[in-house]
Amino acid sequence: MGQADHFRFGFRVRYSEVDYQGIVYFAHFLTYFDVAIHEFFRTLPYDYTDVRKRTGTDFNIVRAVVEYKKPLRFDEPFEVEVRLDRIGRTSLTFRPKLLVAGEAEPRAEGEAVWVHADQATNRSVPLPADLLELLDRKHGTASPR
Amino acid sequence: MGQADHFRFGFRVRYSEVDYQGIVYFAHFLTYFDVAIHEFFRTLPYDYTDVRKRTGTDFNIVRAVVEYKKPLRFDEPFEVEVRLDRIGRTSLTFRPKLLVAGEAEPRAEGEAVWVHADQATNRSVPLPADLLELLDRKHGTASPR
Amino acid sequence: MGQADHFRFGFRVRYSEVDYQGIVYFAHFLTYFDVAIHEFFRTLPYDYTDVRKRTGTDFNIVRAVVEYKKPLRFDEPFEVEVRLDRIGRTSLTFRPKLLVAGEAEPRAEGEAVWVHADQATNRSVPLPADLLELLDRKHGTASPR
Amino acid sequence: MGQADHFRFGFRVRYSEVDYQGIVYFAHFLTYFDVAIHEFFRTLPYDYTDVRKRTGTDFNIVRAVVEYKKPLRFDEPFEVEVRLDRIGRTSLTFRPKLLVAGEAEPRAEGEAVWVHADQATNRSVPLPADLLELLDRKHGTASPR
Repeated sequence: MGQADHFRFGFRVRYSEVDYQGIVYFAHFLTYFDVAIHEFFRTLPYDYTDVRKRTGTDFNIVRAVVEYKKPLRFDEPFEVEVRLDRIGRTSLTFRPKLLVAGEAEPRAEGEAVWVHADQATNRSVPLPADLLELLDRKHGTASPR
Repeated sequence: MGQADHFRFGFRVRYSEVDYQGIVYFAHFLTYFDVAIHEFFRTLPYDYTDVRKRTGTDFNIVRAVVEYKKPLRFDEPFEVEVRLDRIGRTSLTFRPKLLVAGEAEPRAEGEAVWVHADQATNRSVPLPADLLELLDRKHGTASPR
Repeated sequence: MGQADHFRFGFRVRYSEVDYQGIVYFAHFLTYFDVAIHEFFRTLPYDYTDVRKRTGTDFNIVRAVVEYKKPLRFDEPFEVEVRLDRIGRTSLTFRPKLLVAGEAEPRAEGEAVWVHADQATNRSVPLPADLLELLDRKHGTASPR
Repeated sequence: MGQADHFRFGFRVRYSEVDYQGIVYFAHFLTYFDVAIHEFFRTLPYDYTDVRKRTGTDFNIVRAVVEYKKPLRFDEPFEVEVRLDRIGRTSLTFRPKLLVAGEAEPRAEGEAVWVHADQATNRSVPLPADLLELLDRKHGTASPR
């Protein structure tokens, strides 16, 4: 995917998310990444909560990483850029970045690996064909690599 | 119920719960109350999550109140006292207090009204007979008032 | 204040805010109210975090109430209407409502009482004159009642 | 450090921490790790919040990782084992594990890298000598590697 393809979603830091140092508590970065990834799916449009009801499969997160570069303060507006880095047979790897307007470097960046799994057995299963098609139509990247 | 009947559950303030002022963010008091009420049910012992699976009924919260008296700081140990104030036909009213050892006045007190409801129709239904019996055995207070 | 004066701020339910029942965990309603009240102050525009640094005074919440009418589900868009109900000598009383487009009844409504206090002594102090003026200019309601 | 040195701290999953799937929302694992690391410091005993007031230095988290192995359900009791994996010149690297009694494999494991930094300039500074001494006394591991 070219740079142009990267979806971004805007936020503003809530008072409830800030800690004693006046900066966002580190765990909330994962929540921001998650909200942005959900919004990425909406643009496809793909409703994985609906898929769960229909097929009994859903995504499980198996790995999350955050590299914290610079703190984020109360009330700051920011964006999370969602880069879908890898489409595996049963998994999606996202590399989100947390960006503030006018700054060259991200405040944070990370990784989120989602595995498509049968919710009864917890076994990974291939990504849904309709999701692959939607990703391909949108980004030209749906062929498993 | 006499004073002696009031169940208490201990906590310590987490860093994630503290805001810029270095005190517990006000919404978390409801979470503390909720955890303590859950532990109160455990003492009966009554597992409402299990009831939900069996009968399709569960408790819905319909009213929550917190009166904040004095802030609670990072790392402070405290207790929530759970007083079951009223047993209605379909509802339970709790009056929790947040207490710190050695202090006469609570840091906060509140109210939580739980209604027993059919989860499909959202209609209130009478409290389960086995719950009333457990409350009566424990506290001598189970007769609906 | 007439109906027209009531400020509204839009949200969408995050996955992190939803509990086992698939509905917003009850404590988060206070966070939504709080975010909307902060945005209300922005419209004045009044920056109470800045005031704190300059004067050593800040608002403390002394009472919060939520009446839950109907659950709010994952991914639902909604608004919080902020009604400033009472301007006291040292306090502001807000009556927020949580509204979903197209519905006559609010999903929840509540109350939040903020007291202006000296942060060193924790004593209430009169509301800042510049805040009263901004409220008066905006809403014609700044005279203490 | 030998296996025997690893500090463990006990928890129980709160209702507020569980999501629609009935399992702990993934961001809360970082909060669990953080609470356990704070309790680890208490055993030394070392109060980094106090250090901040005295010296203007504090720890900043620069990297957090969670590998999710198996979900954690509402009301499950569990422990976080805190292994201090590396003591650098200016940083500490923790490798926490989330364990459930009677299970050979952790439900999750991760990494947290804390850098000791001047809070005004955000520059890393050497770990405090008294902290190194406490770690050495407790674990025989305080020499920077």
